[in-house]
Amino acid sequence: TLIAVLAGDGIGPEVTAQARRVLEVVAPDLTYEEGLVGGAAYRQTGHPLPEATLALAERADAILFGAVGDPEFDGLERALRPEQAILGLRKSLGLFANLRPARLFEGLEDASALKPEIARTIDLVIVRELTGDVYFGDKGRDLTPAGLRVGHDLMRYDEEEVARIAHVGFGTARTRRGRLLSVDKANVLETSQLWRDVVVEVARDYPDVQLAHMYVDNAAMQLVRDPGQFDTIVTGNLFGDILSDQASMCAGSIGMLASAALGETGKGLYEPIHGSAPDIAGQGRANPCATILSAAMMLRHSLGRGDDADRIEAAVARAISEGARTADLGGSLSTEAMAERVLAGL
Amino acid sequence: TLIAVLAGDGIGPEVTAQARRVLEVVAPDLTYEEGLVGGAAYRQTGHPLPEATLALAERADAILFGAVGDPEFDGLERALRPEQAILGLRKSLGLFANLRPARLFEGLEDASALKPEIARTIDLVIVRELTGDVYFGDKGRDLTPAGLRVGHDLMRYDEEEVARIAHVGFGTARTRRGRLLSVDKANVLETSQLWRDVVVEVARDYPDVQLAHMYVDNAAMQLVRDPGQFDTIVTGNLFGDILSDQASMCAGSIGMLASAALGETGKGLYEPIHGSAPDIAGQGRANPCATILSAAMMLRHSLGRGDDADRIEAAVARAISEGARTADLGGSLSTEAMAERVLAGL
Ligand SMILES: CC(C)[C@H](C(=O)O)[C@@H](O)C(=O)O
Ligand SMILES: CC(C)[C@H](C(=O)O)[C@@H](O)C(=O)O
Repeated sequence: TLIAVLAGDGIGPEVTAQARRVLEVVAPDLTYEEGLVGGAAYRQTGHPLPEATLALAERADAILFGAVGDPEFDGLERALRPEQAILGLRKSLGLFANLRPARLFEGLEDASALKPEIARTIDLVIVRELTGDVYFGDKGRDLTPAGLRVGHDLMRYDEEEVARIAHVGFGTARTRRGRLLSVDKANVLETSQLWRDVVVEVARDYPDVQLAHMYVDNAAMQLVRDPGQFDTIVTGNLFGDILSDQASMCAGSIGMLASAALGETGKGLYEPIHGSAPDIAGQGRANPCATILSAAMMLRHSLGRGDDADRIEAAVARAISEGARTADLGGSLSTEAMAERVLAGL
Repeated sequence: TLIAVLAGDGIGPEVTAQARRVLEVVAPDLTYEEGLVGGAAYRQTGHPLPEATLALAERADAILFGAVGDPEFDGLERALRPEQAILGLRKSLGLFANLRPARLFEGLEDASALKPEIARTIDLVIVRELTGDVYFGDKGRDLTPAGLRVGHDLMRYDEEEVARIAHVGFGTARTRRGRLLSVDKANVLETSQLWRDVVVEVARDYPDVQLAHMYVDNAAMQLVRDPGQFDTIVTGNLFGDILSDQASMCAGSIGMLASAALGETGKGLYEPIHGSAPDIAGQGRANPCATILSAAMMLRHSLGRGDDADRIEAAVARAISEGARTADLGGSLSTEAMAERVLAGL
C-alpha cells in the first residue's frame, strides 16, 4: 500500500513527519513516497504541482498532505501560486467530497472562544463539495466597452455534481445521528435552487435521514449561537470553505482538526485544516495532532482500517485529556514531544 | 421630511411601530407614509415590491424598513418571493453601501455565545457592497447537451463598483480607529483579484488609514477567535452577507443590531438585521431595539441629525444597562414595554 506524502510549505514538513511516525507504529506495512508540492515545488521546478507529483498522487493508494502557501509567492500570477496545487490535485483526482469533522476535545474548553457549555456541544461534520461551484467555473478578467476592468467567476452546479455530494451527505448522516442540513442561498441564487431541488430528490433514497435546509447567512449565525444543533451539514464548495473554517474555530484550536477529500473510488487526500502557518514554520512548535488525525481518517476511509483509526483517535484524545499541550493550546510542548505523547497513548 | 415606512412581514410591523414612537419624540417634525412590501404586499397586490411602494421609496427622504420573509411563500418562484422586495429596493435606489455595526452592549455579555472577555472586545463595522456580485450577475437554469439540469449565477464586479464601496470603507475607517480590512478570496477568484487591486489603488487617497487583506475563510475563523482585532471590514455582497450575520451573533442578540443601506445621495434604507421571525410574529415579544437603532442611523446618515441619533443610542444603551430585557435577551418585557424603557431614557 503506497502513501504519497506531500508535505508542502511552512509547517507542512514538520507535521507530516510526526504523522508518519504514528503511522509507522500503527500500520508498519505501509510504504511511502514523497513528492514536491506548493511553494516548495515552485521553487525547485517552476510549478506548484509538478507532473511527477501528480503522477505519484495518481499511483498512490492515498495522499497524506501537509499544507501549501507562502507569502513569498503572493506576487505570482494565480496559476503559479502554491494554493493551485491543492485545487489541481482535487480536480485532477476527482476528489469531490470533503469531510471536515469538528468536535471539541475534552479538556480543550479553554481553547475555544465560545463559552465552555456551548463549545462542549459541538459534534458535527461538514460535507463540502470540492470540485465545482465558483471555484472551477469559467473565470477571467475583461474590459467593459467603456474600458472598465471587470473580474468574473461563474458559479455553477449541474444535477449530477449535486446528487453525488448529496449522497455522501446522506450516507454520512446515516452513520451519525441521522440528521442532514443542506446549506445554500436559495433565496438569491439559481445555483442554490437547483442544489435544493436535487438534494430533496436524493432524500427519497434516505427515508431514515431527517433533512432540513438553511440559508448560509443564518448557518453562519447558528454556528456561533448554538453549534450543538448540527449533526451533518452538506454544502457547496464556497460556502463549505467558509463554514468549515468557522466551525473548526468554534471547536477550539484549528491545530486539532483533520479533513479528508474523497472521490468515487477509495482514494483520498488527507490534510490538516490549518494552513502552512509561515510565522511558526521551522520552529518545531506546530501542533501535529490535526495531521495525525488526518492520517487516522486515511486509515478509515481509504485503507479500510477503521480499528487502527480508532486507536489513533483515542490516543490523541488521551494525550489531550492528560494535559499534553502545544503552543496553540496554551502549552509548551514541541511538535515532536506532542507526537510522542500520542505515541505513548497508543 | 418624508419617511417611507415599509413594515413588511412577521415582526416587521411590531418593531417599526415602536421605532416610530421613539422618532416621534426625538424628531417630531418628520412625516410618514406607509407602503406595502414583501409577503404582505404579495398577498394584496400579487407582487412583493408594488410600483406604488417603489414610487414612495423614491419620493421619500429615507426608508424605515421592518423585515420581509414568510414561509408561506417558499413555494413561489423566486421573482415573487418576499426577499425580492429588499433586493429590488437596493438595486432600484442604487443603495450600494451597507453599513452593519456590531458591538456588544454593556450588560449583554451573557447573550453572546462567546466568552465574555472576548465578546466585550467586539466593536466593528462591516461595509458590505449591496448591488453587485453574484447577487445581481446573470443567473438562470439550463440543460447541458446531455440533458442535465444546471444552475448558474455570475459573480462579477467592475472597477467602479469596487472603487465606490472601497471609498465608503476607507471613509468609515477614518471616522473610527483608522484600520480597514478588505475581505476577499483572491487565491481562488478573479473577481477577488480585481477587488484587491482596486482597493489597493483607492488606498492611495487614504494614507491615514491602515489597509490589510484577509481571505474570507480566515475572516470567518478570526471573527470567532478574536473579533476584537477588527475595526472596519469592507467586502463584497455575498461575503458581507455571511460575515455580517456571523459578526452580529458574536455580539450577542441579533435583536440589538441595526443597518443602513446608502447610495450616492443622502438617501438610505434602514433596517434591523434580524429577519421577520415568523415564529414569534404577532405576539408582542420581539425586541424593538434593532429597529430603534436603525432609526438612529437614519437620523445620522440621511437626515444630518447626528445629535438626535446619539440621544437614541444612549437611551438604548441605558435601558439595557439598567436591565431591560426582551425574551431574546433572556427577559420578559414586551415589544412595547421595551420601547417604553428606551423612551424613558431619552
Ligand atoms: C487554499 C485554498 C484554495 C483552499 C480552498 O479555498 O479550498 C483552502 O482554504 C481550503 O479550504 O482547503
Ligand atoms: C433576504 C436576503 C435576500 C438578504 C440578503 O442576502 O442580502 C438578507 O440576508 C440580508 O442580509 O439583508
